[in-house]
Amino acid sequence: MVVITGASSGLGAALAKLYDRDGKTVYLTGRNRERLADVASGLSSKSKHCACDLSDPNAVESLFGLLEGVPQTIVHCAGSGYFGLLAEQDPQHIQSLIDNNLTSAIHVVREAVKRYQDEPVTLVMVMSTAAQVAKAEESTYCAVKWAVKGLIESVRLELKGKSMNIVAVYPGGMATEFWPNSGKMMDTSRFMSVQDAADMIYGAMSHLGNGHVSDITVNRT
Amino acid sequence: MVVITGASSGLGAALAKLYDRDGKTVYLTGRNRERLADVASGLSSKSKHCACDLSDPNAVESLFGLLEGVPQTIVHCAGSGYFGLLAEQDPQHIQSLIDNNLTSAIHVVREAVKRYQDEPVTLVMVMSTAAQVAKAEESTYCAVKWAVKGLIESVRLELKGKSMNIVAVYPGGMATEFWPNSGKMMDTSRFMSVQDAADMIYGAMSHLGNGHVSDITVNRT
Amino acid sequence: MVVITGASSGLGAALAKLYDRDGKTVYLTGRNRERLADVASGLSSKSKHCACDLSDPNAVESLFGLLEGVPQTIVHCAGSGYFGLLAEQDPQHIQSLIDNNLTSAIHVVREAVKRYQDEPVTLVMVMSTAAQVAKAEESTYCAVKWAVKGLIESVRLELKGKSMNIVAVYPGGMATEFWPNSGKMMDTSRFMSVQDAADMIYGAMSHLGNGHVSDITVNRT
Amino acid sequence: MVVITGASSGLGAALAKLYDRDGKTVYLTGRNRERLADVASGLSSKSKHCACDLSDPNAVESLFGLLEGVPQTIVHCAGSGYFGLLAEQDPQHIQSLIDNNLTSAIHVVREAVKRYQDEPVTLVMVMSTAAQVAKAEESTYCAVKWAVKGLIESVRLELKGKSMNIVAVYPGGMATEFWPNSGKMMDTSRFMSVQDAADMIYGAMSHLGNGHVSDITVNRT
Repeated sequence: MVVITGASSGLGAALAKLYDRDGKTVYLTGRNRERLADVASGLSSKSKHCACDLSDPNAVESLFGLLEGVPQTIVHCAGSGYFGLLAEQDPQHIQSLIDNNLTSAIHVVREAVKRYQDEPVTLVMVMSTAAQVAKAEESTYCAVKWAVKGLIESVRLELKGKSMNIVAVYPGGMATEFWPNSGKMMDTSRFMSVQDAADMIYGAMSHLGNGHVSDITVNRT
Repeated sequence: MVVITGASSGLGAALAKLYDRDGKTVYLTGRNRERLADVASGLSSKSKHCACDLSDPNAVESLFGLLEGVPQTIVHCAGSGYFGLLAEQDPQHIQSLIDNNLTSAIHVVREAVKRYQDEPVTLVMVMSTAAQVAKAEESTYCAVKWAVKGLIESVRLELKGKSMNIVAVYPGGMATEFWPNSGKMMDTSRFMSVQDAADMIYGAMSHLGNGHVSDITVNRT
Repeated sequence: MVVITGASSGLGAALAKLYDRDGKTVYLTGRNRERLADVASGLSSKSKHCACDLSDPNAVESLFGLLEGVPQTIVHCAGSGYFGLLAEQDPQHIQSLIDNNLTSAIHVVREAVKRYQDEPVTLVMVMSTAAQVAKAEESTYCAVKWAVKGLIESVRLELKGKSMNIVAVYPGGMATEFWPNSGKMMDTSRFMSVQDAADMIYGAMSHLGNGHVSDITVNRT
Repeated sequence: MVVITGASSGLGAALAKLYDRDGKTVYLTGRNRERLADVASGLSSKSKHCACDLSDPNAVESLFGLLEGVPQTIVHCAGSGYFGLLAEQDPQHIQSLIDNNLTSAIHVVREAVKRYQDEPVTLVMVMSTAAQVAKAEESTYCAVKWAVKGLIESVRLELKGKSMNIVAVYPGGMATEFWPNSGKMMDTSRFMSVQDAADMIYGAMSHLGNGHVSDITVNRT
């Protein structure tokens, strides 16, 4: 079984299709029940879905409690974008950005580690190249993405000698639905399509013998 | 005038004394009115203080609205610590950690940039060496500190050509009141005292001609 | 055609086999003619090889001058390891380390950029996780690997808007022939095999539409 | 006694004057005997100087062998600049850049660690902001500076529990003699003067109790 957060759109939805196509049972979660059902309707009948507000730790606990058995892979794609000069950003949107990107990631990672640290579970954390560099007009977005990187690099140290593994994925320059309403003008015509990014990320992940691909950046050429 | 957040204890209180001793008018803020008054009672009579919940954007706006004139320096020391294995961390404490460290920093930086980006204001952001490296048993603390670093490195890009400047300060290995109740066992006997750290940071900050000391790390020898 | 440096052993030789198996014409280079011939003898008859001291800029220029046509991919695997406490390292071995890792990389990247920056060439730079973090008893090795990372991150900025692309590969914890004579005692029984690392790196590299996998880390689980 | 490398000009010469003015015995070294004598002639009579090619490990060993007693501080300022697009850089200049910046730094750090790791010696490594970020038209310069940062961050791990300490200094945007003949056109009129940078760095360095200022960046405002 593969659990995918943020599965109602974008990279999450695209990765769900790839796992489903390969015969995996996918368990989709996201904030919007209708959009999840819509994505699920395009998958094989064994797929499941459940809406969840991942910024609520009790909801995250319940979500994982519903799973039958230990998932092989958890792909955390949930997140949202908010851009523009800091001086012009709105406090409510900033709060949503923190909830949707950082708070959610902490609760998902925490619940996964609590339950599965001694199991051969792969936790795939999809972030952004905004987690790796500073960018003007993306200050709060970089803040929450740097936070998630700091979180997982620290948790990796706590997982030394444990069976669970974390894979870090950094997509950059992807033409998502973030941009049109994001507050930052961008020409995304030369950006990667979500489908191409999903295909490349999916193809890049592997583990063999004592090793695995632990960190992947996909970017515009 | 020098505005100091997190001034009711620790590095904030120690820096307040140093600025006051040098004849600056210090304006102290922090969450706890009594402790602020206590710190202020040890300063010269021109010092002012005002309690403020910096994670509330309206409170931050009001606080800066009270200032008479443009501050020369804003020293953001506010923050709190929370440590221990992620699997054992408590969601409420995690929420406080995010509010006290990331949300507060965003609102302070945002308000400062909105008001003073075209003024010769120095914004000193006191973080931690936990903003620079990953650390086991400090995953959420590293997360919020990496976030603040990502925030200010991005805002620096937005401030290019503006008069306002950001100074980044990274103390490490300091014996603060964080540790005794923090959830991580540490022998702090070989750590720096808060007073020594404050003296070194205060002495290291300078600007001359076209330049300034932009980043300072203080650490145990 | 695919040019592979450091092809006489380790990851270079393993990647050569994978490209050859996929029908590519591989052009092998390395310091030792016999070992190159030995690797080439296991490949299809269209493979070529030529010994070259990559730390000699004239030799690098001649090598690329021999190529018939523009290579599709250049995989720079050449390098050597040297470890142990800095205080105990030998100046001659340090000089070889610099020549084999940094000077060679500069000349290969420089020659490739000179010739092919306007061609759709992929330059794959195989470094090490020692390029990403500091490690005790690997100080000079980290130095030369950090150097190559600084080089290519800077060259990427020079290649903006050009057709050539750089892919960065960071293997960590691989059981290579570096270790037995390296000066640092390591139990490599839980390390990745070279073959597994090569298979994972080879499988992870892709480009689709406007994008590509730009950075890959493979590591022990 | 304070040993200063690269003392015949720039930051090295300016720091020599500051230490001399404070009553320290300074021991100057650099490649050019005449320029060293010239700098020394402006210092108090107790100052000493000795020309040395720091890229020669035997010369470095001899240099330290000449010192009477254990130095309190070693300030490594030696280095040279070389800039421009990688495709247009000259192999001989690249070799000099590696020798003057990386090879020299390794030999100085190695000799210092060998001799003084158990003494309360402060080794100040003056690098550049080019050690911290990638820069177009500075690829090889970034390479050698990233290398020195990788070196000292690794050596710091080897020095844990030892008496010797390393201080990292990153000047950026300084109007040195590097630029006019460097191969990269820059308007340096808004850069920091060398004197201002030296004053700020000198003033920022301190150690108190269990701590010290371990990392300093000075930059243009």
